[in-house]
Amino acid sequence: MDSSSQFDRDTAVNLRAPGVYDTDLSADWTIFGVVNGGYLLALLGRALGEALPHPHPFSVSAHYLAPSLPGPAVIRTETVRAGRTLSTGQASLFQYAEDGTETERIRVLATYGDLDALPDDVRTSAKPPAIPPYEHCFGPADAPTPLPGSAEITRLLDIKLDPATIGWAVGAPSGKGEVRGWFGLADGRDPDPLSLLLTVDALPPTAFDLGLSGWTPTVELTTHIRCRPAPGPLRVSITTRNLAGGFLEEDAEVWDSADRLVAQSRQLARAPRAS
Amino acid sequence: MDSSSQFDRDTAVNLRAPGVYDTDLSADWTIFGVVNGGYLLALLGRALGEALPHPHPFSVSAHYLAPSLPGPAVIRTETVRAGRTLSTGQASLFQYAEDGTETERIRVLATYGDLDALPDDVRTSAKPPAIPPYEHCFGPADAPTPLPGSAEITRLLDIKLDPATIGWAVGAPSGKGEVRGWFGLADGRDPDPLSLLLTVDALPPTAFDLGLSGWTPTVELTTHIRCRPAPGPLRVSITTRNLAGGFLEEDAEVWDSADRLVAQSRQLARAPRAS
Repeated sequence: MDSSSQFDRDTAVNLRAPGVYDTDLSADWTIFGVVNGGYLLALLGRALGEALPHPHPFSVSAHYLAPSLPGPAVIRTETVRAGRTLSTGQASLFQYAEDGTETERIRVLATYGDLDALPDDVRTSAKPPAIPPYEHCFGPADAPTPLPGSAEITRLLDIKLDPATIGWAVGAPSGKGEVRGWFGLADGRDPDPLSLLLTVDALPPTAFDLGLSGWTPTVELTTHIRCRPAPGPLRVSITTRNLAGGFLEEDAEVWDSADRLVAQSRQLARAPRAS
Repeated sequence: MDSSSQFDRDTAVNLRAPGVYDTDLSADWTIFGVVNGGYLLALLGRALGEALPHPHPFSVSAHYLAPSLPGPAVIRTETVRAGRTLSTGQASLFQYAEDGTETERIRVLATYGDLDALPDDVRTSAKPPAIPPYEHCFGPADAPTPLPGSAEITRLLDIKLDPATIGWAVGAPSGKGEVRGWFGLADGRDPDPLSLLLTVDALPPTAFDLGLSGWTPTVELTTHIRCRPAPGPLRVSITTRNLAGGFLEEDAEVWDSADRLVAQSRQLARAPRAS
């Protein structure tokens, strides 16, 4: 564990009792005061990695119940099944009201395994997204005025977006529902299976590229980690094909520097009202 | 409830105690003796629809723990959160060993809402799959010899596959990882949000089209129900883009007779060994 990275320090969990972990949600991972959903997922993923007999998240299904705020939290885990190659667990994150009442913020059902034990076969028809070189992409620091997605969390992330997908930042969204770009942690920490849980929910929402602004709260987010990522920058592509009835799906793909598809995710989110 | 349909009779659940339902897994929904995962999902979805304050599944995440067998089962539900427009619940299906021990077969986390209360806006870039007319497609009865996917369940389903995606049935898989076709219940029961949970896991696996035969056990399956389906036949498309490390994802889209994308799902499954 590289404790020199803020990601590792801020996802630390402390065993209080069997399967129960105390933690603290850092205000540095917030967007407009609310804790980022990908950071929460990594926190729950870390607790499950400690509680379960297998080390890596293979499939993590999260249902978001209420916004999480910076401050203390407790994660309760349950080992649902411990198998030979896969194990399944459940984890919930709770925070306290002023009167001491616990409120559940997010609940996760996850299956873990050992990515390093998988065979090397790759037979994929998926292609990495076409993204211009890093130095031709744009980050929050390049914007003439702060972007709508700007927030505390942007200081911790090294995100550079494909210029073709940031028209929304200058009032000209493409309408396609696509955002893609380079992703890294700003302090240079290399990706691992846990940090991929952050990566899938870190880009500005596709809703911006559809010409919608405002909050896009996640209802459900499932992530499949398919491979241990190679060191170096990641490429992330998120797309929305179906905005209907006030909800949209957002599909994310994460590719590593060795051109492997390392993570796939889909979330169901409430769409912002048309602006 | 149209009790003249076997689907409705076989997904009946009987309240035993608050949130606890007795049911019976019908042998008619099996494939090689194992109960179909989509039928199980519909059973759990029905129990949650009775337990939660909202009627329709919006997002259902299922982790499959062990194969289910025909016979008695008990479903235990928990209301995780009851909100104004959405509620979240959890459900587990248990079966009994000969010594009376309960074994959990599948656990589900789900968010429910009211599809009929959603606005009518549709802004989608997704297009229905190009499938030849029903009468130009092929079902199990058209095969010269029983198909590898044949099983009890095929008698209850009216599935006709696009000829372009059934080369595997005559030893010539396309290698693309695509299967698509028409879907209905054989007794003519129209689709509803619950039956869509069956539909997403009812076609022969994409692995067949990749030239692999054998069992493709589901690890995780998340389904989003996006719209109440119009009466009439459904079109289903399933695709696999990434087979790697012994696992594959299978994405399903379900379109109704009114050309609405009514369900989207993704599962992570173990790949069969190369044949």
